[in-house]
Amino acid sequence: MTVRTEPSQHAGMRASNLALVLGEVARTGPVSRARVAVHTGLTKSSVSGLVTDLISAGLIGESAPAATERGRPATALTLAPGGAAGLGLEINVDYLAAMVTDLTGAPRYHHVVSRDNRDREVDEVVADLIEVARTAAASATSQGLPLAAACVAVPGLAVDGIVVRAPNLGWAHVDLAAAIHEGTGLEVDLENEANLAALGEMWFGGHEHEGAPLRDFVHVSGEIGIGGGIVVGGEVFRGAHAGAGELGHVVVAPDGPRCGCGGHGCLERMAGQQEILARAQVATMAELTQACEAGDRAALDAVADAGRHLGVALSSVLTLLDPAAIVLGGAFATLAPWLTTATAASISHHTGAAEPPRLLVSGLGSDAAVRGAAGTVVRRVIADPAAHLARRP
Amino acid sequence: MTVRTEPSQHAGMRASNLALVLGEVARTGPVSRARVAVHTGLTKSSVSGLVTDLISAGLIGESAPAATERGRPATALTLAPGGAAGLGLEINVDYLAAMVTDLTGAPRYHHVVSRDNRDREVDEVVADLIEVARTAAASATSQGLPLAAACVAVPGLAVDGIVVRAPNLGWAHVDLAAAIHEGTGLEVDLENEANLAALGEMWFGGHEHEGAPLRDFVHVSGEIGIGGGIVVGGEVFRGAHAGAGELGHVVVAPDGPRCGCGGHGCLERMAGQQEILARAQVATMAELTQACEAGDRAALDAVADAGRHLGVALSSVLTLLDPAAIVLGGAFATLAPWLTTATAASISHHTGAAEPPRLLVSGLGSDAAVRGAAGTVVRRVIADPAAHLARRP
Repeated sequence: MTVRTEPSQHAGMRASNLALVLGEVARTGPVSRARVAVHTGLTKSSVSGLVTDLISAGLIGESAPAATERGRPATALTLAPGGAAGLGLEINVDYLAAMVTDLTGAPRYHHVVSRDNRDREVDEVVADLIEVARTAAASATSQGLPLAAACVAVPGLAVDGIVVRAPNLGWAHVDLAAAIHEGTGLEVDLENEANLAALGEMWFGGHEHEGAPLRDFVHVSGEIGIGGGIVVGGEVFRGAHAGAGELGHVVVAPDGPRCGCGGHGCLERMAGQQEILARAQVATMAELTQACEAGDRAALDAVADAGRHLGVALSSVLTLLDPAAIVLGGAFATLAPWLTTATAASISHHTGAAEPPRLLVSGLGSDAAVRGAAGTVVRRVIADPAAHLARRP
Repeated sequence: MTVRTEPSQHAGMRASNLALVLGEVARTGPVSRARVAVHTGLTKSSVSGLVTDLISAGLIGESAPAATERGRPATALTLAPGGAAGLGLEINVDYLAAMVTDLTGAPRYHHVVSRDNRDREVDEVVADLIEVARTAAASATSQGLPLAAACVAVPGLAVDGIVVRAPNLGWAHVDLAAAIHEGTGLEVDLENEANLAALGEMWFGGHEHEGAPLRDFVHVSGEIGIGGGIVVGGEVFRGAHAGAGELGHVVVAPDGPRCGCGGHGCLERMAGQQEILARAQVATMAELTQACEAGDRAALDAVADAGRHLGVALSSVLTLLDPAAIVLGGAFATLAPWLTTATAASISHHTGAAEPPRLLVSGLGSDAAVRGAAGTVVRRVIADPAAHLARRP
């Protein structure tokens, strides 16, 4: 057995113990120091020292004494909501959005600007997003919430802060993270919106599987495009080149028409918003919903037809990935009342499954991605408080 | 910082250090003790003690002294081929197979019994497999190879030693691991054949990705059924209920005929061996291959048609999973010369990808699964030598 005690290892050990304690408080708080010691396997005196550091860093707060099992009062530890906050941003085809969440993940600011971003100059859209970000940051400041960083949801592939491609926006190789950083002074990460929507759904959607939070599922996000987020063991599955989860381009009509991606018969081409609106002969999602509510046959048929195509794609998803559940988000959540019967029937037909699959409907709808973006920032603080403290001015 | 030194932790630390050293020797051997110390971060004296234990356990051997960087000779450590061996077994629709590999993964015995197992009593087939296993075990004994355990590849879903279902065999709830254990005295695990074929391909197939062994790929195993094995980061991806990777039941013809699984339009129904043989109007794979070699139009069309359907399924696989490569195994490897052009064209058509995907052909063919099964046993010994030593009589 070898025990090495170089300073670098001490620092690493301290960082990992800070994360252990803060993670335990986040998961089980309000909780006493003694219970944190039991759950983490650390000694009581280690826990006390680490908690003192986390309290003075503003990440943990002490609530009023609560009775312990033996009846003696002990102060209970919780995450300090105001200790660090996350700025989530979203750029999508027909809107921009910002959300600030505090350290507990609770929303403290939310703003959506509806505007079609397809036919505008990239610089204009980026300038608008910076403006949206600054307004959100000002709100955070006025609420006494220190922003740890920002995370931007983009409808495409993002690598190392660059939007490599966002076909539905017509963007390629846009250096978005650097622009937002310059405009706000914050550290900025980019991530695919479908992946962030899936994380938002996992953290804030309230779904369960066998009594525990859902950690293995596929989230379907239908905005102008159709995206998918695959979550495996609580983590986003990205594939070998960060391109996994492109549910919108699963083949559902092998002899079907050409899709914007260059392929043929993709789900997005057969069941995307534009296709549904065209078949229903309406111009907007609001009109479509109204028409469905009014029992309009063309609208109901258009949505059911999209539901059948979605069922073909989800049959292949279930067969390949065997998730614990499918969560329908975005526009598919809005259309769920008129869509899910056709989708479930299509899945039964194509998989032959006797039991219907777990088809859940998101309660977060189109806010899932921006919530996941803000949540990503605060989750990172909780996962590595030492790095967060080292970065503070 | 907390350092705890209870005996249980000593034992755990020793087990983990034995695995660290043996793993390093397996990966980089022949290698000197000094180099193992550098690579593992353990002290030289720790490494010496651990190596002594692994040598006396028969898992590590010393080869002739090799020159070190400074020119002084040092004995080089390698895996001892005869230290432990794995018995791989396979039960498939039209054959039984057994393979013994030594600790280095080298095949030391291989036997295949061709016979259609579909219309036979389960007990008869199990008795035959036990006989095949005993013969293989006798060969291992006569070669001085101590079998660590057995692993059985089954064409279906296996959980906790039970074949839950194997549709192409017509089996359900067969207590196979217990039967093989009783017949051979060995510890026995079951695993899906498509998953084992993927592991066999990764360990013994010799494919690379950007200069390193392939660790993120999808393996297609076409026997009577069509299976898929998804490997992510070197591990089999199993999904929430161990059912992931069922490539044969990806929907490739949404309006297509009913499949044996109860679904409709599945890849297996459109491009399985029986379908290809029927369209080519031949009775066996050997006849099909001969007909293709002779340029028979019906045979070539049947194979190309299967290739197109396979391309539809793989388009969805590439879109959802973004693997570094696809490896065609089993019958698809045999048919590759007449299949892959159609498959690649179908993928290009359905994904719109400018670059053709990495479509590799297995050199292991139908032996991949049984090789993966035997390899699984010896890999487990290398991953946890302490558990192996504790189990020895």
